[in-house]
Amino acid sequence: MRVEGQHYRTIWPTDDGVAVEIIDQTRLPHEFATVRLENLQDAAVAIKNMLVRGAPLIGATAAYGVALAMSAESSDAALEQACTTLAATRPTAINLRWALARMKDLLLPLASENRAQAAWQEAAAICDEDVKNNRALGEHGSKLIRDKLEAKGEPVNILTHCNAGWLATVDWGTALAPIYTAFDAGIPVHVWVDETRPRNQGASLTAWELQQHGVPHTVIADNTGGHLMQHGMVDMVIVGTDRTTACGDVCNKIGTYLKALAAFDNQIPFYVALPGPTIDWSLDDGVRDIPIEQREAEEVTRIRGRTDEGEIVTVTLTPHGSPAANYAFDVTPARLVTGLITERGVCPASRKGLLGIYPEQAR
Amino acid sequence: MRVEGQHYRTIWPTDDGVAVEIIDQTRLPHEFATVRLENLQDAAVAIKNMLVRGAPLIGATAAYGVALAMSAESSDAALEQACTTLAATRPTAINLRWALARMKDLLLPLASENRAQAAWQEAAAICDEDVKNNRALGEHGSKLIRDKLEAKGEPVNILTHCNAGWLATVDWGTALAPIYTAFDAGIPVHVWVDETRPRNQGASLTAWELQQHGVPHTVIADNTGGHLMQHGMVDMVIVGTDRTTACGDVCNKIGTYLKALAAFDNQIPFYVALPGPTIDWSLDDGVRDIPIEQREAEEVTRIRGRTDEGEIVTVTLTPHGSPAANYAFDVTPARLVTGLITERGVCPASRKGLLGIYPEQAR
Repeated sequence: MRVEGQHYRTIWPTDDGVAVEIIDQTRLPHEFATVRLENLQDAAVAIKNMLVRGAPLIGATAAYGVALAMSAESSDAALEQACTTLAATRPTAINLRWALARMKDLLLPLASENRAQAAWQEAAAICDEDVKNNRALGEHGSKLIRDKLEAKGEPVNILTHCNAGWLATVDWGTALAPIYTAFDAGIPVHVWVDETRPRNQGASLTAWELQQHGVPHTVIADNTGGHLMQHGMVDMVIVGTDRTTACGDVCNKIGTYLKALAAFDNQIPFYVALPGPTIDWSLDDGVRDIPIEQREAEEVTRIRGRTDEGEIVTVTLTPHGSPAANYAFDVTPARLVTGLITERGVCPASRKGLLGIYPEQAR
Repeated sequence: MRVEGQHYRTIWPTDDGVAVEIIDQTRLPHEFATVRLENLQDAAVAIKNMLVRGAPLIGATAAYGVALAMSAESSDAALEQACTTLAATRPTAINLRWALARMKDLLLPLASENRAQAAWQEAAAICDEDVKNNRALGEHGSKLIRDKLEAKGEPVNILTHCNAGWLATVDWGTALAPIYTAFDAGIPVHVWVDETRPRNQGASLTAWELQQHGVPHTVIADNTGGHLMQHGMVDMVIVGTDRTTACGDVCNKIGTYLKALAAFDNQIPFYVALPGPTIDWSLDDGVRDIPIEQREAEEVTRIRGRTDEGEIVTVTLTPHGSPAANYAFDVTPARLVTGLITERGVCPASRKGLLGIYPEQAR
């Protein structure tokens, strides 16, 4: 999508073909800066420290991380080590494991001297497929928005949580792809943007994306959505996911479950947008089985912002010595999900629903 | 309660008897400072700018605001103007209206020259009654915690939202009174403290209170409670309220409704602690009829904290130009409330339940 009018993806190989460039998302919305990843370690740190985040983009970055590793040393041991290092960066997003498995399955049978080139090609293919998937799910999802407009005759109010926009993917986004597609088609939309504490991906990334693209939006505290839904100010919720089980349980940024409960209580459709690689066909019960990453307490007790003088500083919010806990994700049971928006269409959040559009996954 | 070992109330007349002193709650948790209110305008500004906040403390401050006004000028017109000025400071807390009506009903029949003294006495009486109510509801509520301890045999985990501690009242608090009472009686408790964006009363006030008193606690983002409840890490929720209807609908800080939904979904008891004056006997349907205050967008887009150098600064969190909305309260329907903890005991959140303990309110 566009930044100051210029088209960007979130990750791309450099012109010299030996490195990868990314947007440093920890510096948004106050600074737009790109960072060059030169080797495996750079890629692992970029994922771990969330310079890149969002399940699809984590997968794409991991794929390029393998390519960077193969350029340096393409032995079986090096491939194994690259995959192990990258897999350890974040525990929840399934796309990370999916991308690493795909790279390993492709590269391991190849002769060592052919691996680097194949890895770069495969990483690029993963990126292109992500963009293609997101465009397709954007088309499917935008029909839901159009239907709502036709039923209502007024701008459609959509609530989203965290950032599942183009910054979370290679381009277009998941939850925001239907919104961009609808907006570009002239459908009047307005987005309620949950700020998404503790890391504020909504206030910093989603708001920034939408503003760059000109989509009307309003930032709200995460506490606000229930009240808006009680008063008819939300027509639908669309969120992304870091991992969705074969039964349709949805793991996403902490707080998603609370919005799903409120949507259900107020009979407001709650949709989850995801490309196929985000589905974990090996799991059924998401609440029981998906590992939930715990991050540093400092993400809760401290926050970064811009002073009136334009300086970026981190300030402490809590009393000295008060401990904090930081669970990064929660799981929304399938019973609260109205539908899954995928690149193959919209389906019910159930095993039957998912197998209806991914029949090749039937065991 | 205690601050650095010394006992404080949140509001008290100065020794010279001509002014009132309060704790400036906007400077917590980083600075403990008191402020002297000299006149009606000082009191109105203290409420409006939230130097004092919390429904019972707003009521007490308004009562002292009337007393300050009467000391300056005790005509009917001055009394009327004082009540009008103070009533306009915050729209949602019912205690504000209750305290002003009580002061006016007492003072209007009196001769002008007797009003000042009577006003100071009545404001002090309102404060003393608040403390007495809160101690009583603390006793009733602590039994629920003791029962849970006996059933469980391990420390009781209680989640609270916003600040309904002693800082929200004259002393002891509402939601925290049962917790302080239980803790002082040797019952092992641990409190999950919702930070409570956008003003962070949980992270700044509740955490500070609990730490000063030595109560084990952990600060969490508002998004976290649902996940904790899904995983058995919350035994009960106790919150305060700014206004509860005659049918038991509970208006409280924005986001309370989301926690009530999660508690209900996970069969966790959800209690609301309130003294009698917080009940609005004139209203039934809280979602429809309670006015919800909208505050400045800046409370969402900007936040105050302490730099590593110890300076208190305000930083901007959102992209330049992204609008924000700031609804301060929401309403939790009575169907989601397990019980109301009052100074007269614990009752169901229903008209029948409330009239059972407040029979004098039967119409």
